[in-house]
Amino acid sequence: MIKVGIIGAGRIGRVHSESITKYVKGAEIKAISDVRVTDELKEWAKGMGIPYVYEDYNHILQDPEIDAVLVCSSTNTHAPISIAAARAGKHVFCEKPVDPDKDKIREVLAEVEKAGVKFQVGFNRRFDHNFKAIKDRVVAGDIGEPHLIRVTSRDPDAPPIEYVKVSGGLFFDMTIHDFDMIRYLSGSEVTEVYAAGGVLVNPEIGKAGDIDTAVITLKLANGAIGVIDNSRKAVYGYDQRAEVFGSKGAVQTKNDTDSTAVYSCEAGVIAEKPKYFFLERYMQSFASEISCFVDSVVNDKPTLVNGNDGLQPVLIALAAKKSLEEGRPVKISEVA
Amino acid sequence: MIKVGIIGAGRIGRVHSESITKYVKGAEIKAISDVRVTDELKEWAKGMGIPYVYEDYNHILQDPEIDAVLVCSSTNTHAPISIAAARAGKHVFCEKPVDPDKDKIREVLAEVEKAGVKFQVGFNRRFDHNFKAIKDRVVAGDIGEPHLIRVTSRDPDAPPIEYVKVSGGLFFDMTIHDFDMIRYLSGSEVTEVYAAGGVLVNPEIGKAGDIDTAVITLKLANGAIGVIDNSRKAVYGYDQRAEVFGSKGAVQTKNDTDSTAVYSCEAGVIAEKPKYFFLERYMQSFASEISCFVDSVVNDKPTLVNGNDGLQPVLIALAAKKSLEEGRPVKISEVA
Amino acid sequence: MIKVGIIGAGRIGRVHSESITKYVKGAEIKAISDVRVTDELKEWAKGMGIPYVYEDYNHILQDPEIDAVLVCSSTNTHAPISIAAARAGKHVFCEKPVDPDKDKIREVLAEVEKAGVKFQVGFNRRFDHNFKAIKDRVVAGDIGEPHLIRVTSRDPDAPPIEYVKVSGGLFFDMTIHDFDMIRYLSGSEVTEVYAAGGVLVNPEIGKAGDIDTAVITLKLANGAIGVIDNSRKAVYGYDQRAEVFGSKGAVQTKNDTDSTAVYSCEAGVIAEKPKYFFLERYMQSFASEISCFVDSVVNDKPTLVNGNDGLQPVLIALAAKKSLEEGRPVKISEVA
Amino acid sequence: MIKVGIIGAGRIGRVHSESITKYVKGAEIKAISDVRVTDELKEWAKGMGIPYVYEDYNHILQDPEIDAVLVCSSTNTHAPISIAAARAGKHVFCEKPVDPDKDKIREVLAEVEKAGVKFQVGFNRRFDHNFKAIKDRVVAGDIGEPHLIRVTSRDPDAPPIEYVKVSGGLFFDMTIHDFDMIRYLSGSEVTEVYAAGGVLVNPEIGKAGDIDTAVITLKLANGAIGVIDNSRKAVYGYDQRAEVFGSKGAVQTKNDTDSTAVYSCEAGVIAEKPKYFFLERYMQSFASEISCFVDSVVNDKPTLVNGNDGLQPVLIALAAKKSLEEGRPVKISEVA
Repeated sequence: MIKVGIIGAGRIGRVHSESITKYVKGAEIKAISDVRVTDELKEWAKGMGIPYVYEDYNHILQDPEIDAVLVCSSTNTHAPISIAAARAGKHVFCEKPVDPDKDKIREVLAEVEKAGVKFQVGFNRRFDHNFKAIKDRVVAGDIGEPHLIRVTSRDPDAPPIEYVKVSGGLFFDMTIHDFDMIRYLSGSEVTEVYAAGGVLVNPEIGKAGDIDTAVITLKLANGAIGVIDNSRKAVYGYDQRAEVFGSKGAVQTKNDTDSTAVYSCEAGVIAEKPKYFFLERYMQSFASEISCFVDSVVNDKPTLVNGNDGLQPVLIALAAKKSLEEGRPVKISEVA
Repeated sequence: MIKVGIIGAGRIGRVHSESITKYVKGAEIKAISDVRVTDELKEWAKGMGIPYVYEDYNHILQDPEIDAVLVCSSTNTHAPISIAAARAGKHVFCEKPVDPDKDKIREVLAEVEKAGVKFQVGFNRRFDHNFKAIKDRVVAGDIGEPHLIRVTSRDPDAPPIEYVKVSGGLFFDMTIHDFDMIRYLSGSEVTEVYAAGGVLVNPEIGKAGDIDTAVITLKLANGAIGVIDNSRKAVYGYDQRAEVFGSKGAVQTKNDTDSTAVYSCEAGVIAEKPKYFFLERYMQSFASEISCFVDSVVNDKPTLVNGNDGLQPVLIALAAKKSLEEGRPVKISEVA
Repeated sequence: MIKVGIIGAGRIGRVHSESITKYVKGAEIKAISDVRVTDELKEWAKGMGIPYVYEDYNHILQDPEIDAVLVCSSTNTHAPISIAAARAGKHVFCEKPVDPDKDKIREVLAEVEKAGVKFQVGFNRRFDHNFKAIKDRVVAGDIGEPHLIRVTSRDPDAPPIEYVKVSGGLFFDMTIHDFDMIRYLSGSEVTEVYAAGGVLVNPEIGKAGDIDTAVITLKLANGAIGVIDNSRKAVYGYDQRAEVFGSKGAVQTKNDTDSTAVYSCEAGVIAEKPKYFFLERYMQSFASEISCFVDSVVNDKPTLVNGNDGLQPVLIALAAKKSLEEGRPVKISEVA
Repeated sequence: MIKVGIIGAGRIGRVHSESITKYVKGAEIKAISDVRVTDELKEWAKGMGIPYVYEDYNHILQDPEIDAVLVCSSTNTHAPISIAAARAGKHVFCEKPVDPDKDKIREVLAEVEKAGVKFQVGFNRRFDHNFKAIKDRVVAGDIGEPHLIRVTSRDPDAPPIEYVKVSGGLFFDMTIHDFDMIRYLSGSEVTEVYAAGGVLVNPEIGKAGDIDTAVITLKLANGAIGVIDNSRKAVYGYDQRAEVFGSKGAVQTKNDTDSTAVYSCEAGVIAEKPKYFFLERYMQSFASEISCFVDSVVNDKPTLVNGNDGLQPVLIALAAKKSLEEGRPVKISEVA
């Protein structure tokens, strides 16, 4: 049984807290910190059985009983907190992206390595039952050599413009998961990226300097070709599908729904829409990624999403951004 | 190349004519007869390239060039015309049911046997791609021993009350196909029937002495159990599904649709309704049954739906009717 | 926050314990009892945070702090323990069947009523996402008047012969859930039952006096017809489907799978088999039924599966058994 | 009733002949020509009821009774024969591609316009039930503004290397249909193309100067983005899917299969593979395109696939080829 501290009590920090309380054998939460400690937070922590609530995360880092921390604070603090935690000898689970700046990520990775602690990045979709089922087929050799990897990733609605302005853009706040998925499913590194994009959902997004619709082509080291299509707004809900096609066959996933019920009436044969958004769709994967992280710590195993897995999607996103700006394919080596 | 005469130029007579003209290698239509020869019929026959149109079907039976006849006239004439045709040495394709009276069917079968001609009954669904795919799995042994056979058969709308009054009732005009399907898919004879039914669609059907909704349980000689559910009216269209379940697995079919298109929108994920009714749904099977009949004639093979296949569903329908009237399971031997 | 005692620490007792610990807001387990208190049980209870473990369930009934009990002991003790609990003023959640003897059930219901405590029976499938989606459509009026209700319920493998000998038979240990489902989905009472059955899976089951394959037709008070098909062994896994068909449309459910992945290869287009058995398939419903029970207790609401819901399926099972033995449809009034 | 001549009696010439004979009202074939008139061809033509068989197609062009010709000869003769036919006053149905050389296509279009004859190009997939169902949704406004158009087009096996050497390459012999489909489904012109490709199926294809796997991104005049993925070899069969996603929803199609049968067994839940190849998959569309062409001629309507529809996909293919060679996106204006 290890003791865990959670840094950041926003939405994702609480999701992980609930997962640990409900599903994760072998870990308990000793403390949570947040820059704003409200009565509501104290009440919530009490209900969850979390003994300590701090404003200053250093209390967590200085607690010798705490084995591992989950960095769930705002993105710009991921890197410094991860470094501080590693230096304090804590194992680190860090939400994605580690940092939008590749050099800061490398700094984190260097510190983690020096400290000899475990480091896992929050690419939760790798732990999703559907994507995992694809990966299992690939690993089992059922697909043969991968030739094409397709990811469809469309949100049910665009985020507020204020978020768009600070998120780093579509490639960093949304496609980053898909970049990771292409690497995960193919088992190969991306070498070159070409991004086509447009502002088709909401002109305000364009005014904020971002796009809302994209098709990204990715060349992989093993010769396979990846392709991602993104939209900020699918009116029918969160569209999360993938396919790997290769020399021996193909495997593809459909969207999850709340039930399998199909209603036949004069208007047609109507199935349910996809589960609404990431909290509904990926809840199981959030619990699973933390279980695996705890398992890595407890049993001294490598983490399943390591430092390089945190770095590469950011490099791909940088290349995609440059590709879009310059209207040409961009090699990862140009931005690495 | 054999020459064929068609007796009865109603809907099904014309369906078979078109099939022969378009799809059936090895047969051509020399003549068609109908009790009412209109200008429209003559025009239609000309367009189809059918040389002769008669009012009296005896002209067909007396034509030595004609090898085979298709009996597509009204149900009450199926038996006498089939007998006359067999006596004239013509091979006979007879629409279902051969006759609602089991003794008349036996008379036909005796005459056919005496004449040594081919005899095929129009249970077209055996030639349908979906039902055939089930049968192929059963015959290949993929299902193992059959345990359960389920047939769902629901019409898109109830027929006119005038038709209901003379059709012989649901079991004879509609379920008769499903009785045949249970025998075909199971490869076994029905020994006992229990029918539950009601008037839920339209009270006028009840006043006409019929039911519009039914569940029929059938015990089979091989120990398997069949079950059919019927409705005169499925608002979403013609619902035609079947399943065979056995010791090694199960095979089931879905409805055919005009396209595979699925539309995702705010209201749901909407697929197409089943093809509207039997002409849309079973057109391929009508062509295929005639091709097989012609093949039996040309190559002197047994027909794929023989005289006994014409008799048994009528016996089952008689048992179902008696079961419904008496509120108890009825053995086929009680009505045979 | 109510305190709960669990009587019986077998499989289902532990399933409910985990549900309460993980998912049920507003309840905590104070004690668990079992006729055999092993070290393993003590260890397990400790891990679950359950303070007390007793051999004698009377310690639970006598604890004034405990508000409600879950009766998860062996079937023959359900009735007496439920009665004792009601007399002790505890709210009762009782696993199904309350008792195979209708008179004992009535006795329980009388005592429960006298005591004025909540009483819920463990028909968990009503809380399943798929069956609930059907019910929601029915309640919303989307189906119109129900005409046909179909339930397919097939186990992945037959239970041990020792179990078959004491379970009361297929209708009591397996179909009982389906009888409940027909009532739940139709919103109507069963008035008459006809059961056809056979021994097709394993002759040992026949020697033990039971059947392993059945089709049961049920007439309902509202005129609709229900039909259930059962098998003790579906080699492809736990087959749990249902359909309600009515004047305005139909709604049907498919099986749940571990993922939506579909593998296309030379052998075909292969989807996953259904989730293996009831623990995998219905885990969410077990949690949900307990949540609802706790909600009924805390907020003084009627339970969603009441005493009559415990009685009726047993009456239907009695009628089904009599029908099978006597080869005729049996009215519920004959066995009530 | 118009009279038709067919030039070229290879596979596609015979497919069209059969379509006209079986399905096309209002047209009959008077003559067929081929550079090699064999006894087999004469026999086949006789069986089809085609009165004349010529070696020299000029006999067809000079026959004043013939209203329209179908140009089904080898690709390099499409343009000169189409021009000769137009000059002879015949309406022209020309197989795709009209010519790999854009200037020759323009020459054909100029001659056709001068002659005032109908001209239709053989992009048969526009007439396919599935793609048409997508188009119908787009035209009905159900998709809103199109944002993304995806086409998956994978052959069941690579063609012989000898064919690869002369076909003009993947973009001209295979993707050309998909380029047309993107235009058809989006209702917009392609303005820029980026092609990523590789040799993953068979190194011999690479030696022959071609690729066998590709992902092509297409920017459209209306702002939407198209993406095509191609493979020369899908071991599970002919994979032909498409999707249009827009502001109001999305519509996508699945593959057609020979039956809807699904087999559940210990190995999984197995559906059928897609129909094998284009002759099986697209037969209905071949008949439909000719029916529409005949309708255009008989009723003096514009053809549904006009001269520009023949030209644009060739320009897109030229841009795709240049893009692949130069590793950059290429504007259609660069190659037009």
